[in-house]
Amino acid sequence: MKPSSTGRLALLVALLASMLLPMPACGGRDNIAIVVHGGAGEIRKDSMTPEREAAYREKLTEALGAGYKILKEGGSSLDAVEATIRVLEDSPLFNAGKGAVFTNLGRNEMDASIMDGETLDAGAVASVTRIKNPISAARAVMTGSRHVLLVGAGAETFAKEHGLEMADSAYFWTQERWDELQRVKQEQESRSKQGAGGHGTVGCVALDKNGNVAAGTSTGGLTNKLWGRVGDSPVIGAGTYADNRTCGVSCTGVGEYFMRALLAYDVTARMRYFGVGLEEASDKVLETLTTMGGEGGFIALDGKGNIEMPFNTSGMYRGFIRGDGVPHVFLFRDE
Amino acid sequence: MKPSSTGRLALLVALLASMLLPMPACGGRDNIAIVVHGGAGEIRKDSMTPEREAAYREKLTEALGAGYKILKEGGSSLDAVEATIRVLEDSPLFNAGKGAVFTNLGRNEMDASIMDGETLDAGAVASVTRIKNPISAARAVMTGSRHVLLVGAGAETFAKEHGLEMADSAYFWTQERWDELQRVKQEQESRSKQGAGGHGTVGCVALDKNGNVAAGTSTGGLTNKLWGRVGDSPVIGAGTYADNRTCGVSCTGVGEYFMRALLAYDVTARMRYFGVGLEEASDKVLETLTTMGGEGGFIALDGKGNIEMPFNTSGMYRGFIRGDGVPHVFLFRDE
Repeated sequence: MKPSSTGRLALLVALLASMLLPMPACGGRDNIAIVVHGGAGEIRKDSMTPEREAAYREKLTEALGAGYKILKEGGSSLDAVEATIRVLEDSPLFNAGKGAVFTNLGRNEMDASIMDGETLDAGAVASVTRIKNPISAARAVMTGSRHVLLVGAGAETFAKEHGLEMADSAYFWTQERWDELQRVKQEQESRSKQGAGGHGTVGCVALDKNGNVAAGTSTGGLTNKLWGRVGDSPVIGAGTYADNRTCGVSCTGVGEYFMRALLAYDVTARMRYFGVGLEEASDKVLETLTTMGGEGGFIALDGKGNIEMPFNTSGMYRGFIRGDGVPHVFLFRDE
Repeated sequence: MKPSSTGRLALLVALLASMLLPMPACGGRDNIAIVVHGGAGEIRKDSMTPEREAAYREKLTEALGAGYKILKEGGSSLDAVEATIRVLEDSPLFNAGKGAVFTNLGRNEMDASIMDGETLDAGAVASVTRIKNPISAARAVMTGSRHVLLVGAGAETFAKEHGLEMADSAYFWTQERWDELQRVKQEQESRSKQGAGGHGTVGCVALDKNGNVAAGTSTGGLTNKLWGRVGDSPVIGAGTYADNRTCGVSCTGVGEYFMRALLAYDVTARMRYFGVGLEEASDKVLETLTTMGGEGGFIALDGKGNIEMPFNTSGMYRGFIRGDGVPHVFLFRDE
């Protein structure tokens, strides 16, 4: 065989090998991505002032930017998720942290969860009233205890022991949410005494340069909620899930449907057991939600940087940044 | 064509049709079944008195009998699950209801959940301290509210409003569990201040004459638990799941593993998406638990009456009754 033939053969073998070898799940820093939501529900352009619309777009962009900066500098997806959600928790625009809605008793009871797709470690808090950033408490539960879920006063004691910033009820009091409680109470006086309203749960999924996926969710739950109701947000598998083998998911909507059908986990189960991609799994899960009569949506991001943001309501506060650093933010259905 | 030919053809068509038509999931009353567990853990013949062993066998048989009677008389699987678990909650032998373990603060904080495989409706309570039968409170949440999970004092208010029997702390105080708390506290003084011990969670899955599957779980959690820790028992998909299309599941063990991998739901997801049977799905889920480093087990029952009771500990209190009415009860691995 002539040398030139050998060279051509080697080239052919190399070419074939490059085609046959699986692509790495993550292609380095360019593959980083972050996706966020600020709740799904009745979100229409014609029922929102231009100022309010601008405020939502601005805050979502700021939150995405906080997480993206961490990813761009080589930080972890967990750090990015926590930083992004903290921005949204600190804003009165969303139903989480500062902007949490009021319960029937005029309190703010918050839930949050976070999950690490590399280890399947997870942490969550539910029914906490005095923790300034519940998402950070969820992360402390994940890293500082052997537990997954802590609730109520016990969770607050844990958070305090771990140096988290506490806040009094005055911090969580906002005029808008208070007025919302009075309105919902009046509307419901002649109806069932169940909780209602209060969309605006926030969530985030991120993919870092090491190919690790993380997801988190934070909420104030339902306006006028009774009886210590806890929704899907602090429930791993219902409102939040992350698994490097498949994807990360954060949900928003009427939590009970997400809890009964484990919709966050179901996206990953369909990918693993059916072998379908993120888009098909997401479509099927939204279909399940709709078939059950549930309203809401979710964000999902897989290890290759694919993003899905499906919802069956009129709008969902949402957005993402990919490796190019350009933020994309959306509020309504047709945009 | 001669009449006799037509007759043969009709017979052939009928025969083929009967072979091609799917079998009903449930073949009538003979197909009823009920399966129960009373916790997995260090359960060995050589570390148990004959009297204690007999007491466990007797109580498990009594509990199975209570549920079986309902199924035999044509009652629903939900009624059977609730009745069976109430028997175990009323016994001091198991870590649920009357026999619930003590938290670090010397309280009894209980969790329970129930799910209807026909409708995917579910209800749960967590961190309740004054409800005599938490499984009945979980059922009241399912049927009497639009919610899935209620926690703490709110859940107790709800239970009271729905006419459930309340109990004071003296009712839940048992010498054995109190001594266990003191022992665990002493053992842990020089170690991590995390909760430990307290196996004995109870659970039940039933299949009624209409082919409906239901599942429920009830627990006192971990001895010496801190910070309002909530385990898998009240989490739909983690400790309990039921879906007529696949099966019902109730779990016991170190709850955090069940929560992170949604092991109850995962049995059903593997059956639906992989198309495997109950046995293979159960084997894989136990393998997941073991691979993660978790300890425990679960019971599972499908719509055809197949039963699985896998565990990776030395023993699991468990048993079942099928349509023949004969109770089968086991405690140790090799029996």
